[in-house]
Amino acid sequence: MTSAKFAVIGAGNGGLAFAGCLALRGAFVRIHDNNPALMADLAAKGTIEVTDCGQSSLASIGEVCPGLGTAVAGADIIFVVTPADTHRAIATAMAPYIGQGATVLLHPGRTGGALEVKNIFNTLIPGRRVIVGEAQTLLFACRRYPPNKVAIMGTKRRVAIATLPRNAAHGVINTLKPFFPQFAAAENILETSLGNIGAIFHPAPTVLNAARIETSPVPFRYYIDGISPSVAKILELIDAERVLVAEKLGKRVPSALEWLRQAYGISASSLHEAIQKNPAYQELIAPKTIDVRYLDEDVPTGLVPLAALAGLCGVPAPFMNAIIGLAGVIRGKDYRRTGRSLERLGLANMSADDIQAMVNT
Amino acid sequence: MTSAKFAVIGAGNGGLAFAGCLALRGAFVRIHDNNPALMADLAAKGTIEVTDCGQSSLASIGEVCPGLGTAVAGADIIFVVTPADTHRAIATAMAPYIGQGATVLLHPGRTGGALEVKNIFNTLIPGRRVIVGEAQTLLFACRRYPPNKVAIMGTKRRVAIATLPRNAAHGVINTLKPFFPQFAAAENILETSLGNIGAIFHPAPTVLNAARIETSPVPFRYYIDGISPSVAKILELIDAERVLVAEKLGKRVPSALEWLRQAYGISASSLHEAIQKNPAYQELIAPKTIDVRYLDEDVPTGLVPLAALAGLCGVPAPFMNAIIGLAGVIRGKDYRRTGRSLERLGLANMSADDIQAMVNT
Repeated sequence: MTSAKFAVIGAGNGGLAFAGCLALRGAFVRIHDNNPALMADLAAKGTIEVTDCGQSSLASIGEVCPGLGTAVAGADIIFVVTPADTHRAIATAMAPYIGQGATVLLHPGRTGGALEVKNIFNTLIPGRRVIVGEAQTLLFACRRYPPNKVAIMGTKRRVAIATLPRNAAHGVINTLKPFFPQFAAAENILETSLGNIGAIFHPAPTVLNAARIETSPVPFRYYIDGISPSVAKILELIDAERVLVAEKLGKRVPSALEWLRQAYGISASSLHEAIQKNPAYQELIAPKTIDVRYLDEDVPTGLVPLAALAGLCGVPAPFMNAIIGLAGVIRGKDYRRTGRSLERLGLANMSADDIQAMVNT
Repeated sequence: MTSAKFAVIGAGNGGLAFAGCLALRGAFVRIHDNNPALMADLAAKGTIEVTDCGQSSLASIGEVCPGLGTAVAGADIIFVVTPADTHRAIATAMAPYIGQGATVLLHPGRTGGALEVKNIFNTLIPGRRVIVGEAQTLLFACRRYPPNKVAIMGTKRRVAIATLPRNAAHGVINTLKPFFPQFAAAENILETSLGNIGAIFHPAPTVLNAARIETSPVPFRYYIDGISPSVAKILELIDAERVLVAEKLGKRVPSALEWLRQAYGISASSLHEAIQKNPAYQELIAPKTIDVRYLDEDVPTGLVPLAALAGLCGVPAPFMNAIIGLAGVIRGKDYRRTGRSLERLGLANMSADDIQAMVNT
């Protein structure tokens, strides 16, 4: 198959699934997570039990690494499978250990993940040649059962990957083909970063259902009840801001409505109708508390960089900005300061034309 | 008592209560509502049955007037007891009929009611001397039972009234004293207009519970469930914007937290705690649909003029503006265009100093 050495950072749902599948398909995989107890348990087992389509298989872990540096050193391809708001800290911590010519792939990058990580590497290890890529979404729908079991409920048929530099994508995808033939090259990182549908579907419905999350005595369905006609109208406007920013950067990205058609085959005339018709959304229950990734991850790595790009492109983004502000109040956080600003993405003082030129070379 | 002739515009909860109480206390009262069927029913009865503190009394209506002009012509004091977003239309329609020296009192004016009505009169009937006043809130907690019954559950101990011109307030209050000794002179219209607590408590919790209002299978309590810790945090920031605007205009107004202490005797360290502790809020159920006055009245006559004044004073008001924008999307309305803009209030091209000078003379 390949002699590439893999590291998987993060032993959550996605991380265990990736590590398990890579190992099952013959790769040498190091795995790291910042939870020492989980590392100890995984090391004691030495394997990951992967259940896919009802079939269970036992994958041998190459090495369980309590230290990030040990996992990364000597790895050819590093999968980072952690919440996107940790990318900055992980990239900073791994920089000294990354080898010449290695590839770091964010699963997923949300908006600007590859840019943020590349910018950190440019600062910390300017001489080293590292490919940084981002997947548009997580390949798997999966759930782990600690310490070492993971159930894969679904695998997407196609997941776009973009890299910096752009022309490295085909090589990365070829290397991954024996393991994950679903990965395909995006046009550029604008496709993956501005195609971030989570930035539309996660923060605003959470903000607009904050009281219900905090005080409802009964659970409610996140999409079916939480995205009511009024909330869906607001999502359509936030989404239109995203699509317009992409357009100003020269990239046509599907609207959330178009994405629901492409991803789920739903045809509908409004976002509300499409969401209500999506079988995959019927039973998803809303979070029980307000301290959720839908705010803490998706605002700083989704709406914040999207709104920052809107500002750069001269696109008014009142609805993104409204949700960023309200989410920050709810969580007591200044997401604009802690999130992916233009500075953190390495885009400060760039024009829309500069960005187009940069992502395409 | 007095020979003043009264007109009451609006035969809703508050209108019937005012008309009934005025008549019971010996005044000649004309009443008008734009609902012809209600007018016909009231005319057939000829009386209003007022229940106050468990005591029922029958008040004789001076005249039921299907036409607004008939009600207004010859009246010395005109009580306008309608949603504030109708003030503009009512003022425009009544202008030709208002007598020299008459007083128009808005119950309540919300934010900028007296300014908006005065501005209309200045344009339409520039030569006529008319006093325009606004009450800070409705005197009564009451409910009508059409066609002619009204139950008064509570009467506030003190309600501030401000007038344009300012020095007319004492005369108006003296005239009303035999009927409603609760009315007291506000310092000026900034006290009544910027003391609009409904602008804080109505739009934002409605927007932030929109999906729950639209899809919850069970009723929920507007204040107790709907103003959760997160929603209360947002209200505190909107409220701080309001208090700061008032300060920039030279007027200290109580915060919502201070107001809850003054009005209900609640002492608490946060708005959330104060609301949860208020016995009056315990059982109030949220609206069942989203087409409610909490948006359609309180946004254009509360948040819109407050945000406009914030702009004039150089106060950033991101949270007011966020709620105005989101409410507009939900209701499909451009509240900034239809609401009380600086132009409509007659304040275009004025400075904060100009406004202070104007309201104090």
